[in-house]
Amino acid sequence: MSEVVKEFNDYRTKMNNKILADNNKVIKRIFNLDTNAFAAGALDVKTKELLGLVASLVLRCDDCVKYHLESCYNEGLSKEQVIETLSIGNLIGGTIVIPHLRKAYEYWDALEAQS
Amino acid sequence: MSEVVKEFNDYRTKMNNKILADNNKVIKRIFNLDTNAFAAGALDVKTKELLGLVASLVLRCDDCVKYHLESCYNEGLSKEQVIETLSIGNLIGGTIVIPHLRKAYEYWDALEAQS
Amino acid sequence: MSEVVKEFNDYRTKMNNKILADNNKVIKRIFNLDTNAFAAGALDVKTKELLGLVASLVLRCDDCVKYHLESCYNEGLSKEQVIETLSIGNLIGGTIVIPHLRKAYEYWDALEAQS
Amino acid sequence: MSEVVKEFNDYRTKMNNKILADNNKVIKRIFNLDTNAFAAGALDVKTKELLGLVASLVLRCDDCVKYHLESCYNEGLSKEQVIETLSIGNLIGGTIVIPHLRKAYEYWDALEAQS
Amino acid sequence: MSEVVKEFNDYRTKMNNKILADNNKVIKRIFNLDTNAFAAGALDVKTKELLGLVASLVLRCDDCVKYHLESCYNEGLSKEQVIETLSIGNLIGGTIVIPHLRKAYEYWDALEAQS
Amino acid sequence: MSEVVKEFNDYRTKMNNKILADNNKVIKRIFNLDTNAFAAGALDVKTKELLGLVASLVLRCDDCVKYHLESCYNEGLSKEQVIETLSIGNLIGGTIVIPHLRKAYEYWDALEAQS
Repeated sequence: MSEVVKEFNDYRTKMNNKILADNNKVIKRIFNLDTNAFAAGALDVKTKELLGLVASLVLRCDDCVKYHLESCYNEGLSKEQVIETLSIGNLIGGTIVIPHLRKAYEYWDALEAQS
Repeated sequence: MSEVVKEFNDYRTKMNNKILADNNKVIKRIFNLDTNAFAAGALDVKTKELLGLVASLVLRCDDCVKYHLESCYNEGLSKEQVIETLSIGNLIGGTIVIPHLRKAYEYWDALEAQS
Repeated sequence: MSEVVKEFNDYRTKMNNKILADNNKVIKRIFNLDTNAFAAGALDVKTKELLGLVASLVLRCDDCVKYHLESCYNEGLSKEQVIETLSIGNLIGGTIVIPHLRKAYEYWDALEAQS
Repeated sequence: MSEVVKEFNDYRTKMNNKILADNNKVIKRIFNLDTNAFAAGALDVKTKELLGLVASLVLRCDDCVKYHLESCYNEGLSKEQVIETLSIGNLIGGTIVIPHLRKAYEYWDALEAQS
Repeated sequence: MSEVVKEFNDYRTKMNNKILADNNKVIKRIFNLDTNAFAAGALDVKTKELLGLVASLVLRCDDCVKYHLESCYNEGLSKEQVIETLSIGNLIGGTIVIPHLRKAYEYWDALEAQS
Repeated sequence: MSEVVKEFNDYRTKMNNKILADNNKVIKRIFNLDTNAFAAGALDVKTKELLGLVASLVLRCDDCVKYHLESCYNEGLSKEQVIETLSIGNLIGGTIVIPHLRKAYEYWDALEAQS
């Protein structure tokens, strides 16, 4: 795995484990709902991951963008599909979104560099 | 057309016409980009409308939600697909999104009441 | 009950019922978590309602502010305690929060006018 | 004065008076700082009002936009200057800003209709 | 003091001094209001610090979260009380808040590691 | 050029080139609009850069603040004019803006250290 991708995932896992070990009921359930919300239903997993990606971009959360980019990559979505999603986020969210777009491109490159 | 839907669209059209008549180049191009961004490409129109919907919900813009709900409805997306999209927005955006969820449900009902 | 308060609650209840009747699992669980999160625990209910109030104000959600103002009122919090909470929200959130502060004051008056 | 403009200002004044009558020190000082911040200094009043306008638009606060539009109008800024300011806000803030742009145009018309 | 905590505070102090040395009246008064707003009044200091914490979390400001976590720690609030506050912020602000929750846990650990 | 300024610009240029090489029509046009929006018109370039700066600050985008600070510096705006703009952003956006104010001051110092 690329160094950047590994580092992001290691930190994420380590801190999630700490948070969940704390047993706060509300937080635990929110974490669990995440799995539910992105499971196949009336919409397939690919579409849902793109929904997560665009929502993360317009809310300008770099870590959330990375997380959904990685799921998109693992689900086999093409770069073109991902970029079109990001372009909608850029239009809706405005130029304020551009610094996050730069980081998204950088992380996608790191994901592709893994193979 | 339902009264609520008609009123929303009439105001939207009237004001858009005023804005575009003003010939500010930047604003006009942003308006034009909207058509481009939501046209079929690597992703189909249905998926793109759902992307617009979830982005509008997490950014808590009632009028944007209504606009994309209407496009979703006209594109033939099912209520189940729309609700799953809204549920992802609710989870990502939190309970602060709930008042906008209420209005989204209300507008969807108005769209269905048209037929 | 004051007309303003009744109208707000009636709409809220009607739409919540519609949303919950839809049986979307993710949305239903988020609604349920609300009860959990604001129940007495390491912090008492009064403190938690003030936390909900200040979070709603800085996120500039009028309906959320009204909802927590009403809970604060019913829990017996004094106007002074509520105003100090709103003042912290105003300082943290800036003058952009002031229009929501106006509506908060108006709704608090409606709550007091009930008795 | 146009009905729309009068109504906006009357509500604003009535509620501001209520808030200030309450004598919360933090809120009162924030209100006072507003006068200070927009007074002539290294930048003139016109420039400062445009700064207030663009900040209000990207933060999507309709009442704040109205307030600064009115100050811009009273300071003698031209419609072209105001629209260029709004166009920068639209580009930075994205299409999510458009519903607020519609209301801004509507209020500017109401301001011009006064004369 | 833990390295992480010291580094955060040193940077904060250094830059605050630079900003205040500049003598901009509006900025100086905003800084001063902070002390006022969090002083004991109708609400005690502990409650106010929790209000500052939850507002910082839902607005997703890592440095503001750290600052209020440190005040909470110094005021003797328990980890349970802090976590319940964060859980309310997580529910209101949604999963977009989770990356900031991770950093909050990490900083709390650094604060506890000081003793 | 100061190390900090050079690093920021190099990363910005490298990633912008990657993004634009991708030829996504919507993103490319948004990037192009940026040049248009900040060109002299009814308002001069200096005023427009200050508008970009205050919008970036209240939206709490550090990279956008840096970008506009640099343009302000290159356009010959004085530190006093820049600080007054930041003070308006601080008042409108609240204390949540302060961490970004610290970084703005730091970057301005780096810009001045270049000469």
